[in-house]
Amino acid sequence: MRTHYCGLVDEALIGRTVTLCGWADVARDLGGLCFIDLRDHEGIVQIVAEPSDAEGNAGVLAAAAAVGYEDCLRVTGVVRKREAINAKIRTGRVEVVATRIELLNKAEPLPFHAHENPGEDIRLKYRYLDLRRPEMQQMMRTRIRLVQALRRWLDERGFQDIETPILTKATPEGARDFLVPARMHPGEFYALPQSPQLFKQILMMAGFDRYYQIARCFRDEALRADRQLEFTQLDMEFAWVSERDVQDTVEEMIRVVFREVKGVELADPFLRMTYAEAMRRYGSDKPDLRNPMEFTDVAEFVKGCEFKVFTDWANHADGRVVALRAPGGAQFSRKQIDDYGAHAAKYGAKGLAWMKVEDAAKGREGIHSPIAKFLDDATLAAIVKATGARTGDAIFFGAATYKTASDFMGALRLKLGKDLGLVAEGWAPLWVTDFPMFEWDDEEKRYVALHHPFTAPAVDDEADLRANAKIAVSRGYDMVLNGNEIGGGSIRIHRSSMQSAVFDLLGIGAEEAQAKFGFLLDALKYGAPPHGGIAFGIDRIAALMAGTESIRDVIAFPKTTSAQCLMTGAPSPVPEAQLAEVHIRVAERKAE
Amino acid sequence: MRTHYCGLVDEALIGRTVTLCGWADVARDLGGLCFIDLRDHEGIVQIVAEPSDAEGNAGVLAAAAAVGYEDCLRVTGVVRKREAINAKIRTGRVEVVATRIELLNKAEPLPFHAHENPGEDIRLKYRYLDLRRPEMQQMMRTRIRLVQALRRWLDERGFQDIETPILTKATPEGARDFLVPARMHPGEFYALPQSPQLFKQILMMAGFDRYYQIARCFRDEALRADRQLEFTQLDMEFAWVSERDVQDTVEEMIRVVFREVKGVELADPFLRMTYAEAMRRYGSDKPDLRNPMEFTDVAEFVKGCEFKVFTDWANHADGRVVALRAPGGAQFSRKQIDDYGAHAAKYGAKGLAWMKVEDAAKGREGIHSPIAKFLDDATLAAIVKATGARTGDAIFFGAATYKTASDFMGALRLKLGKDLGLVAEGWAPLWVTDFPMFEWDDEEKRYVALHHPFTAPAVDDEADLRANAKIAVSRGYDMVLNGNEIGGGSIRIHRSSMQSAVFDLLGIGAEEAQAKFGFLLDALKYGAPPHGGIAFGIDRIAALMAGTESIRDVIAFPKTTSAQCLMTGAPSPVPEAQLAEVHIRVAERKAE
Repeated sequence: MRTHYCGLVDEALIGRTVTLCGWADVARDLGGLCFIDLRDHEGIVQIVAEPSDAEGNAGVLAAAAAVGYEDCLRVTGVVRKREAINAKIRTGRVEVVATRIELLNKAEPLPFHAHENPGEDIRLKYRYLDLRRPEMQQMMRTRIRLVQALRRWLDERGFQDIETPILTKATPEGARDFLVPARMHPGEFYALPQSPQLFKQILMMAGFDRYYQIARCFRDEALRADRQLEFTQLDMEFAWVSERDVQDTVEEMIRVVFREVKGVELADPFLRMTYAEAMRRYGSDKPDLRNPMEFTDVAEFVKGCEFKVFTDWANHADGRVVALRAPGGAQFSRKQIDDYGAHAAKYGAKGLAWMKVEDAAKGREGIHSPIAKFLDDATLAAIVKATGARTGDAIFFGAATYKTASDFMGALRLKLGKDLGLVAEGWAPLWVTDFPMFEWDDEEKRYVALHHPFTAPAVDDEADLRANAKIAVSRGYDMVLNGNEIGGGSIRIHRSSMQSAVFDLLGIGAEEAQAKFGFLLDALKYGAPPHGGIAFGIDRIAALMAGTESIRDVIAFPKTTSAQCLMTGAPSPVPEAQLAEVHIRVAERKAE
Repeated sequence: MRTHYCGLVDEALIGRTVTLCGWADVARDLGGLCFIDLRDHEGIVQIVAEPSDAEGNAGVLAAAAAVGYEDCLRVTGVVRKREAINAKIRTGRVEVVATRIELLNKAEPLPFHAHENPGEDIRLKYRYLDLRRPEMQQMMRTRIRLVQALRRWLDERGFQDIETPILTKATPEGARDFLVPARMHPGEFYALPQSPQLFKQILMMAGFDRYYQIARCFRDEALRADRQLEFTQLDMEFAWVSERDVQDTVEEMIRVVFREVKGVELADPFLRMTYAEAMRRYGSDKPDLRNPMEFTDVAEFVKGCEFKVFTDWANHADGRVVALRAPGGAQFSRKQIDDYGAHAAKYGAKGLAWMKVEDAAKGREGIHSPIAKFLDDATLAAIVKATGARTGDAIFFGAATYKTASDFMGALRLKLGKDLGLVAEGWAPLWVTDFPMFEWDDEEKRYVALHHPFTAPAVDDEADLRANAKIAVSRGYDMVLNGNEIGGGSIRIHRSSMQSAVFDLLGIGAEEAQAKFGFLLDALKYGAPPHGGIAFGIDRIAALMAGTESIRDVIAFPKTTSAQCLMTGAPSPVPEAQLAEVHIRVAERKAE
């Protein structure tokens, strides 16, 4: 239907006749001359309709004059040099003098135009118009190129792309499953996979050695801005490997794809940090290292002070008192400080103590703080020294359990870094390693797995693990980029007895383990090789590469935070007969 | 953990120390010497354990003697030239003299061994052992290479790989949907996509120009041997194209992947055949052209004969009387002929008339047939001549409606071709085109779409289509290979008014159309470009390439014909509380 793409018409074609297809981006009728910007996925070219063309046809101008926004056109014409060069577009040195303008499909008046961004609900409802916007085309293309680059790299290295099922077994562990009633088995259900975790482990036991899949995963969780019901991960697994085999391999992969897609050189090697160090310095297991701010633990200094919140937590076995220096923060207004307190409260803070260093040379006199009166001169001086605070800085304090203090002070660190313009440009990748094996869940009064129940502990002996469960370290690892956990993985348990021991520690009894994970326990008995792997969040990496905060910008048809597709109207009611076929009924709402 | 792969140890490594990981495929204790065949995904290499190694360590022989089938081992040793060359394996000129044998994971006694095929149920239950079998590894690899070759070809040509949702809107059209209750929307459901059809059309309207996806699709249909609940298709769509643009492009793609994966040159160009011709000559819209047998229509000859079944259908407006010559069929026993009759009956035959040509020179005297007495000499002679039957052949006759006669005689043709050894080796691809737009559904008393309701008719005018719906031809096309429809596609409707007209002809009222497909009808109003595409069945193409009848052999974790995963036990019951969370209950079985 066409000879060239609009966006690729160039000076080499001057004098040639071309046929182009595209949308009318802009049409301008300048009395006796008509200009149309014709747009396809490659870009825009200017079409000119003159009173009569070279062969004396006058119809072209009339056809051009009738063109409206987003009409779908086929245009034949002759390429010529443009007089007024438009440096903003790739085709700006040429234009096409139309000899024929064919209306392929008329567009009705638009809810919004390709150059506008009318708000997300409208964009999602008319996603086909939204995606025509060059900005969206670019972001989607970044994702496409990311996935291509990943596949190319993996294929060249012998990783085998193997599909695993979407209709799988319900295994209530971790997030909530999506359920699918089974028509042929009344009262039974399939579940959509939260990840292909067990299948990829089974593939290693089945002799596939190096596996990958760009896999769709499903979690029926409350949606946050950066979550979708369904998401895409690059899922990888390796047989006969150690942590470093996996890490070194995928670190190189990530470097290559950033080079190919973004033209960026990431650090080689990536920085490495234990979980303990990341929590200590940044209050986060996914620290954004573009932000230079670091915590200072001050429990030692305030153990004996007269501020009860400090002394309580400084002397508590699981407590933390941490200070964070905010360079230039002495300028904060009372309102700003209150806002930071409110922000910290969202992450669990009961209060946020603060101190302004108005003149570092003046000791107590130079410090403005509601808590100064509870601290003696030596303590004040020690804090100022330890945090490195200078004249004009502020210091914020968090005191709570180790975890809570780390959480809210970590959140505060991120906000302060942005507000104070301290976050550097660029890319800060790192590995976080040596995670705890278990976290104690105070509500459920049992251990929960920090990664997942298939992660191997650093110790190889079940008795050792049982004896030291509280402090056991796992063989899990996360790849972190600019404060985002973009990949997470581990070496897996490959012996049946160790897997049973871990299930046991997690409060999953032998019977329950057999019912849910019997096939895994069986498979581990038949010579399962040592194996490990990792999974990367494609949506998040694509969003980072595309420079957008929202993963919805790199998903063609995303759902809203209320789990709806505004374009198609999913989810929707279905007829009773259809429910009966799969042996279910809608429960009375009042029974909920 | 290893320096080389087992299957790749070769003479270049002689004298070198290697470390290998793998499974003990066979272990033979020859009194004072032990041989282990160590297997990984690349193949097998022979390990030798001698009474003491070069450094005088005696432990190796003891370790080797303790090895059992499928134990997972790490072996270090020195490569040496093998005395008794084993030409059957790639590594057959070398062996590895072990200096260390490390048991990584002991295997319990196996339900079956990697060299056995113990029946499909056991294989599927222990899929991890089944997939270790070299035969399965090869078949899975064929699939992996197919998908790789397709992606490479598509990526090089600028096709954009875009993911579409798995949680979509229920649109009861075509096959039965899988439903997923929506937790956040009580009483509402998502559906799993039967194909990304509407999303890919929307992507064309969204300006993506050339799309592909290796897409998972779901149909809750009765499972036949060659169907799965979920299956994989290569889904493609093109903007601004005609049928030939699509066909020529993908035909070249299929030729390239067969060349790359199988080393086979497919015909260039593919044969082309209309639906009408395929039905006339082969009684099938997916004829296997490796089978040379063709139909002969004989209604003209038997219109006035005395065999009522023939005359009835020969004079019926929608009837067909068709003959099929079976070369050498005069040898069939009465039992064989009865069996063919039973086979035809499965496809709708009420009876199967037959005729043996025992001596073609003798006219009526040379023919043995229960129906000969109803046919005069001229008719007999005309039939023999038209079918080209010679001495020793048989002729089978089908008389019924055009569709039924075609169906059962087409099925008979396939069976006869196999039984008589007439099916040639090799690959017989073709395009089938010019399908009817609609089929009349006698039960529902309405038209149904032969492809799907979004397929464009050959006529561009709604009034014309309405007036001639019964004989309307669509712009659909199928790619057929060796009797399998491996791909199907069409040019789509790109105008809203035509789409509404087709919905109307299919008995989908304006209100229903708006409720189910409103977003498509809307999208068509905003300058939708002409577009079309195709989808290929990856599972089937992989099975053909792998030389297996069953697509389950090229799916890592398939379900049985009763829709179960024998390994994981899906589907399964789930606790009431989990159902309550998604606002459903299991219906009483008695109420079904």
